[in-house]
Amino acid sequence: MSYLSTHADRSLDFIAIGRLCIDLNANEINRPMEETVTFTKYVGGSPANITIGMARMGVKAGFIGKVAGDQMGRFIVSYLERNQINTDEIVTDHTGAVTGLAFTEIKSPTDCSILMYRDNVADLLLRPEEVSEAYIARAKVLLISGTALAQSPSREAVFVALDFAKKHGVSIVFDLDYRPYTWTSKEETATYYNLAAEKCDIIIGTREEFDMMEALERRTESSDALTAAKWFGYSAKLVIIKHGKAGSIAYTHDGLSHTAASFPAKVVKTFGAGDSYAAGFLYGLMQNWTVEKSMEFGSGAASIVVSSHSCSDAMPTASEVESYIARCKSEEMK
Amino acid sequence: MSYLSTHADRSLDFIAIGRLCIDLNANEINRPMEETVTFTKYVGGSPANITIGMARMGVKAGFIGKVAGDQMGRFIVSYLERNQINTDEIVTDHTGAVTGLAFTEIKSPTDCSILMYRDNVADLLLRPEEVSEAYIARAKVLLISGTALAQSPSREAVFVALDFAKKHGVSIVFDLDYRPYTWTSKEETATYYNLAAEKCDIIIGTREEFDMMEALERRTESSDALTAAKWFGYSAKLVIIKHGKAGSIAYTHDGLSHTAASFPAKVVKTFGAGDSYAAGFLYGLMQNWTVEKSMEFGSGAASIVVSSHSCSDAMPTASEVESYIARCKSEEMK
Amino acid sequence: MSYLSTHADRSLDFIAIGRLCIDLNANEINRPMEETVTFTKYVGGSPANITIGMARMGVKAGFIGKVAGDQMGRFIVSYLERNQINTDEIVTDHTGAVTGLAFTEIKSPTDCSILMYRDNVADLLLRPEEVSEAYIARAKVLLISGTALAQSPSREAVFVALDFAKKHGVSIVFDLDYRPYTWTSKEETATYYNLAAEKCDIIIGTREEFDMMEALERRTESSDALTAAKWFGYSAKLVIIKHGKAGSIAYTHDGLSHTAASFPAKVVKTFGAGDSYAAGFLYGLMQNWTVEKSMEFGSGAASIVVSSHSCSDAMPTASEVESYIARCKSEEMK
Amino acid sequence: MSYLSTHADRSLDFIAIGRLCIDLNANEINRPMEETVTFTKYVGGSPANITIGMARMGVKAGFIGKVAGDQMGRFIVSYLERNQINTDEIVTDHTGAVTGLAFTEIKSPTDCSILMYRDNVADLLLRPEEVSEAYIARAKVLLISGTALAQSPSREAVFVALDFAKKHGVSIVFDLDYRPYTWTSKEETATYYNLAAEKCDIIIGTREEFDMMEALERRTESSDALTAAKWFGYSAKLVIIKHGKAGSIAYTHDGLSHTAASFPAKVVKTFGAGDSYAAGFLYGLMQNWTVEKSMEFGSGAASIVVSSHSCSDAMPTASEVESYIARCKSEEMK
Repeated sequence: MSYLSTHADRSLDFIAIGRLCIDLNANEINRPMEETVTFTKYVGGSPANITIGMARMGVKAGFIGKVAGDQMGRFIVSYLERNQINTDEIVTDHTGAVTGLAFTEIKSPTDCSILMYRDNVADLLLRPEEVSEAYIARAKVLLISGTALAQSPSREAVFVALDFAKKHGVSIVFDLDYRPYTWTSKEETATYYNLAAEKCDIIIGTREEFDMMEALERRTESSDALTAAKWFGYSAKLVIIKHGKAGSIAYTHDGLSHTAASFPAKVVKTFGAGDSYAAGFLYGLMQNWTVEKSMEFGSGAASIVVSSHSCSDAMPTASEVESYIARCKSEEMK
Repeated sequence: MSYLSTHADRSLDFIAIGRLCIDLNANEINRPMEETVTFTKYVGGSPANITIGMARMGVKAGFIGKVAGDQMGRFIVSYLERNQINTDEIVTDHTGAVTGLAFTEIKSPTDCSILMYRDNVADLLLRPEEVSEAYIARAKVLLISGTALAQSPSREAVFVALDFAKKHGVSIVFDLDYRPYTWTSKEETATYYNLAAEKCDIIIGTREEFDMMEALERRTESSDALTAAKWFGYSAKLVIIKHGKAGSIAYTHDGLSHTAASFPAKVVKTFGAGDSYAAGFLYGLMQNWTVEKSMEFGSGAASIVVSSHSCSDAMPTASEVESYIARCKSEEMK
Repeated sequence: MSYLSTHADRSLDFIAIGRLCIDLNANEINRPMEETVTFTKYVGGSPANITIGMARMGVKAGFIGKVAGDQMGRFIVSYLERNQINTDEIVTDHTGAVTGLAFTEIKSPTDCSILMYRDNVADLLLRPEEVSEAYIARAKVLLISGTALAQSPSREAVFVALDFAKKHGVSIVFDLDYRPYTWTSKEETATYYNLAAEKCDIIIGTREEFDMMEALERRTESSDALTAAKWFGYSAKLVIIKHGKAGSIAYTHDGLSHTAASFPAKVVKTFGAGDSYAAGFLYGLMQNWTVEKSMEFGSGAASIVVSSHSCSDAMPTASEVESYIARCKSEEMK
Repeated sequence: MSYLSTHADRSLDFIAIGRLCIDLNANEINRPMEETVTFTKYVGGSPANITIGMARMGVKAGFIGKVAGDQMGRFIVSYLERNQINTDEIVTDHTGAVTGLAFTEIKSPTDCSILMYRDNVADLLLRPEEVSEAYIARAKVLLISGTALAQSPSREAVFVALDFAKKHGVSIVFDLDYRPYTWTSKEETATYYNLAAEKCDIIIGTREEFDMMEALERRTESSDALTAAKWFGYSAKLVIIKHGKAGSIAYTHDGLSHTAASFPAKVVKTFGAGDSYAAGFLYGLMQNWTVEKSMEFGSGAASIVVSSHSCSDAMPTASEVESYIARCKSEEMK
């Protein structure tokens, strides 16, 4: 069966709404940021990374968002365009807002951290009236990201986009992407995550993210099966719960659960693993592959990204993922 | 059929969540406020007025809200208690917030206005974690009021209350009560009104309020029947649309519409008409009266309130409404 | 000698800059506000009260300030005009700011308190570019009040007014009027009080207010003589330190200190004592009376005000104060 | 004569209070920032640059400020320490504030711009109670920078520092350093610049900066001589007004004015010219050189800095400046 809309008449396979920002990755790695000297600039932000990943794999993609009216904003739009992503609905802020920044620090492959600049950022200033119903109606799939729910007016823009997507039969994917520093309280976070998730077809997140969403239910223990069942009671058809190194589990509304192996990688850093996984997995579903095969493809894409320096710029093409998986499997057999 | 929950085991017939404030009504009427000298103090706020109205009619009522930690806050709680309203879940603010004020100006029976003080008010500081699931589970009916959605954290507190009510089979009534001055933009307002209304059993508002909620749909003309149909697509069973002097129309999810006559009144001011109407109407539904009879009872209560000086303190008992209606009908017959 | 400017060519004897607000005095006294029912509306705010007091005594007075664009604001302007106060430089806010309110509670003559509404008040929105140099140049004396320093842009408006007054030889009186709830921190308060006081000719305040101003000096004990000496090192010629019931002491820059007796009164409440004292005292200085006689006149005015229901509306004329003092003295002699 | 304090008993020659931030200079120059890829990290902020410049020249320097509690903050403190600057009074923020950033763009030697990140920056959170009187009492000279006046509580911290400096006979230098984006209005800016300047011994700024300070005086034309005379009416002994390429003019309170030649330079960018000039000039005054010789030394330091990639890291030693000036003069003679 198909988990994503297959409307033949849509000119865009995939659009995302939300954060567009800049990663500044330290060039000198395996040391604390106090000792790094130079940084390289990349486009970043979870929904941006996923969209770039999808576009690299050949998906016709677009983006709804807001960028700062400065050099950083222009760089972002131009990078997306070079990646064949439609930017017609990316608006430019004129209030003096800035582009969100993420300085990455790689002390070791397993000890990475991010220093965020998220005050007065343009992406959270997208207004509901700047979301085009016609644009959403042109798409098969809409991806929303939890961070865009963190503040007004971006929060309302996402709810408006959800309404338009429902109205036009666009499949909705929710990448939870919970970043505590942009939120006021756990209760506020859970409230809006839940209101959004009620309207989504596919929900992807870590166990910790789903726990946060269940904070108001005051349950004593978390259960993947109960979590998935809750969302099947609303609109969801597929819920993926990620358990870090222990792998991911996908629940489908037919009552089944699905897992897939992951692949070895020369890990440089952990950033970007989730975004490349989501890109690969959604690409798989769009090809009408099984949930298992799609998960495997997501894992392959993730292995490639964690072994390179950036998130967005390292996103592989579909054939690169296929080769990687084939190589891993043949080595395994030896 | 019954439009409200009839759980026999609930110790409270009705609870409301939201605004508790103070009306300061000019004693000298039929003149601009520049020329008034003295004011009389009453408890006010739409959900407070409705709850007081219900309690006067004999309904076992409670309230979830937050009051300022000062003389005004203490006056409100003590007034509710004197009216037999359960105040166990009214919490007191300790941040220095104030009580909302409404100075009323009555230039003539048809030219009334309100001067509001709504900055830093305690009622909008109710937090989601201050909403008791057990308390809501004790009730048959929960009333929410749109103004409580205007700001965080009160907004999230209402959504949490809606979740608890759904979980425990508590009927939900949404009194739209739209006050533009507490909101940032039409789009923000419409977003949260819609998210709340999707979860409600009964929705009561003016035509203008429903138009505001439909702002994002960019429809060219408004239609009561379409408005009602939209909400029957979610949880609603009954939608009342008020057209001022032209009367109200109630749509029920069986496809029928209902109207009822209104009664003559010696109008002193128009304030409080909607709140007393809601109290009377909901009281009627609780008695398992027909929609028409309930609407008539609401109209009777409203006629009594608009002919007196206050909103809350003028709320009639059920037998006062009955006598009034009987008297009006017998005079009519003459 | 003269402590106040005697420019013969000035068309205004006295102007004040700052707070214009509304007092709502409970009509039912000697009980907590929870039990009061009606309130009477008066113009209030320390500099407003002093200006009204001065005008009642026959001084040609004006006011620089900002009022809300509503009924309360219009009431204030019209009341000042009825008291012969020039209101040419009172501007009206158009941002939706409100009029500050003070609800007074009189539990007993010695147990009085005030419930303040000071969020988003118009008086603190006076902008520096709204202060007219020409208007200040028309005056002999400018009175500033500490509360106007509490927030931008009113704070900057006061400093601009001080500069204009210095430039045109207008005597400056600083009524400290410290209200902790409008300030962020003690250090912030002390900083701006000191910067303003450095430019003033006459400083009037309570011992506690002067202590607050000396907070950054981290002195262990307070001394009236040291306090006065500090300000004589800047621009001051006269410093009055009030010790409540123990009376006031005035230091003059010639090294002398001055005290005066107070008069008996049937005290209704303590509000307004300081403002009427200031009005009477400054009126005395304007008549070229001695410091002692001016202090006595201030005490007489204060005794009259504390024995009535309001602050502003109870301000006496000069002959009423004279009669009162004469009566008190003759009774004493008996 | 001496323009700076010569107290022999002071353990620090020079301390500055204010901004500590990070410059991120594009490595690829002569192109718009949209096309740059990598950035190099330096300590920045006008008072930081001046202090580093002074320390390089051999002056015993210290700093009063606040840094973010993150890798950027730790980098700043460690860089200052490596430059022999006392950091005992640099406190660390614990509220989640960030380090101010300045991304520099060098399109051509004469077309440079800066993209600033100044929201929620740690440096503006320095509180008055964090300013140590004892530390200031240990210094000969205190430098303040206008940007530190832009917001509370940093603004109050500067005024407290000024009071302590006055009390202990520490000479005060005011580097105007006006950055419009951190201020609300011209009137607010002028108000606090003037209040601070009234207490300073040496004031250094551009003609445009002095014009801003005179905005409230509504003069029709600006005059260097009138500007200087105004400040001699308060505490100033020396006022330097910079006219860009046309050179600087120094007024001294003896009524004289002074100019000095500037030197040729292979200009890479214009950033840092003012800071290195100030460092060199103040170093000269500390050596008891004439105003002219000090100005020449400042010009030499500026020529060196504008021909290199950074501001802070390029600050020369005293002997480097001397050699440079000697070389320029000998070449001139040829």
